[in-house]
Amino acid sequence: MSAAPPTAPSPGSPSVTPIAATDAEIRAVAYDEDGLVPAIVQEAETGQVLMFAWMNEDALRRTLETGRTWFWSRSRQEYWCKGETSGDRQYVRAAYYDCDMDVLLFVVEQEGRGACHTGERSCFFRAFGGDAEPGPV
Amino acid sequence: MSAAPPTAPSPGSPSVTPIAATDAEIRAVAYDEDGLVPAIVQEAETGQVLMFAWMNEDALRRTLETGRTWFWSRSRQEYWCKGETSGDRQYVRAAYYDCDMDVLLFVVEQEGRGACHTGERSCFFRAFGGDAEPGPV
Repeated sequence: MSAAPPTAPSPGSPSVTPIAATDAEIRAVAYDEDGLVPAIVQEAETGQVLMFAWMNEDALRRTLETGRTWFWSRSRQEYWCKGETSGDRQYVRAAYYDCDMDVLLFVVEQEGRGACHTGERSCFFRAFGGDAEPGPV
Repeated sequence: MSAAPPTAPSPGSPSVTPIAATDAEIRAVAYDEDGLVPAIVQEAETGQVLMFAWMNEDALRRTLETGRTWFWSRSRQEYWCKGETSGDRQYVRAAYYDCDMDVLLFVVEQEGRGACHTGERSCFFRAFGGDAEPGPV
């Protein structure tokens, strides 16, 4: 087993790929009156929408620089890095912004069980109308 | 040009499939202090995330009942049915809510050019770091 660089938390973990966004791009995002922007997280391999959370400018910057997803918790008023406690880490493969620059989309490689704290792979595991499908796509 | 029934805007349009959600399910959604909930729209066939908008309880109810996506415009303070003007309609195939019941995900059949007012298929057509890819998945 060879020594892993600091950016690879454990042997066999996915590689970390920072995204070279410009400062102008990051500042051009239309943050809301609380300085936040919605962030959708989608799994690269399956296309499944895994979760939704909020970022501020610094969380976005951390996400692009570290290649891991960072969010701002509105309830706890603190930053959190997805999977830092659970091990269910997300490695960013692409980062998009929408036409109005007020919503973000991250395509990730999901490590571990999945994105949801319940143990489900996606947070969107329940359907209106009692559909028993485990999730979209 | 023959007269089309109200639920089938044009010959050859996708079928409309209302979703039989219960009133309890719709009322159980955790709307924010403005009565709104984020709604992600994903294309059924490709898994591509098409757009993001906001719904209130009535927009959600209309969406499930009509099988077309309805949103609440925060800027115009009015309901809008996706594609009603442009013809780029969305036909709901499944509707999910997340673990906290405060975010919705609609899997749709997208009619016309796509979801974005720019003419792009997805609103998320630009990537941080200048990636030239047309969009995820």
